[in-house]
Amino acid sequence: MFVILVYDFDKRRVSKALKIARKYLYWVQNSVFEGEISEANYVKLKAELEDIIDPDVDSVIFYTFRTQKYSKREEFGLKKGGEEFIL
Amino acid sequence: MFVILVYDFDKRRVSKALKIARKYLYWVQNSVFEGEISEANYVKLKAELEDIIDPDVDSVIFYTFRTQKYSKREEFGLKKGGEEFIL
Repeated sequence: MFVILVYDFDKRRVSKALKIARKYLYWVQNSVFEGEISEANYVKLKAELEDIIDPDVDSVIFYTFRTQKYSKREEFGLKKGGEEFIL
Repeated sequence: MFVILVYDFDKRRVSKALKIARKYLYWVQNSVFEGEISEANYVKLKAELEDIIDPDVDSVIFYTFRTQKYSKREEFGLKKGGEEFIL
């Protein structure tokens, strides 16, 4: 399935969150990641983020799609990440 | 159609971008907006953001969906925005 992940972590935790998210998804913009992911890895990714989250401060949203058939993606301005981008 | 907007504007332009995005969509997290939008308003929203963007610095991504049938949304941690949230 296809996933878009957006998060907002306090700066004390954001580098940990970045490291976790990049294990599973592509970084596309500050705090935004996307990619194809298996159900098993999606469960792992959520669990790893839940391990570090402070639920009173941080925020995580996952949008998951069984198909990309009905989606379109338009980007303008600086292209900051993507599949071909190595940080 | 349903739109998810994520942006990354330089701090000199981010308040303008926020003001524009909130005319059309709901704010859900720092730099993340979503909502149902007409094709006409989608064109307007893009034009307004393109008016202020510095394409060498700023970044805007739109994910558009004709249907939400195949999508799921999971959120954890602090709920920062949403339809019921008035800034």
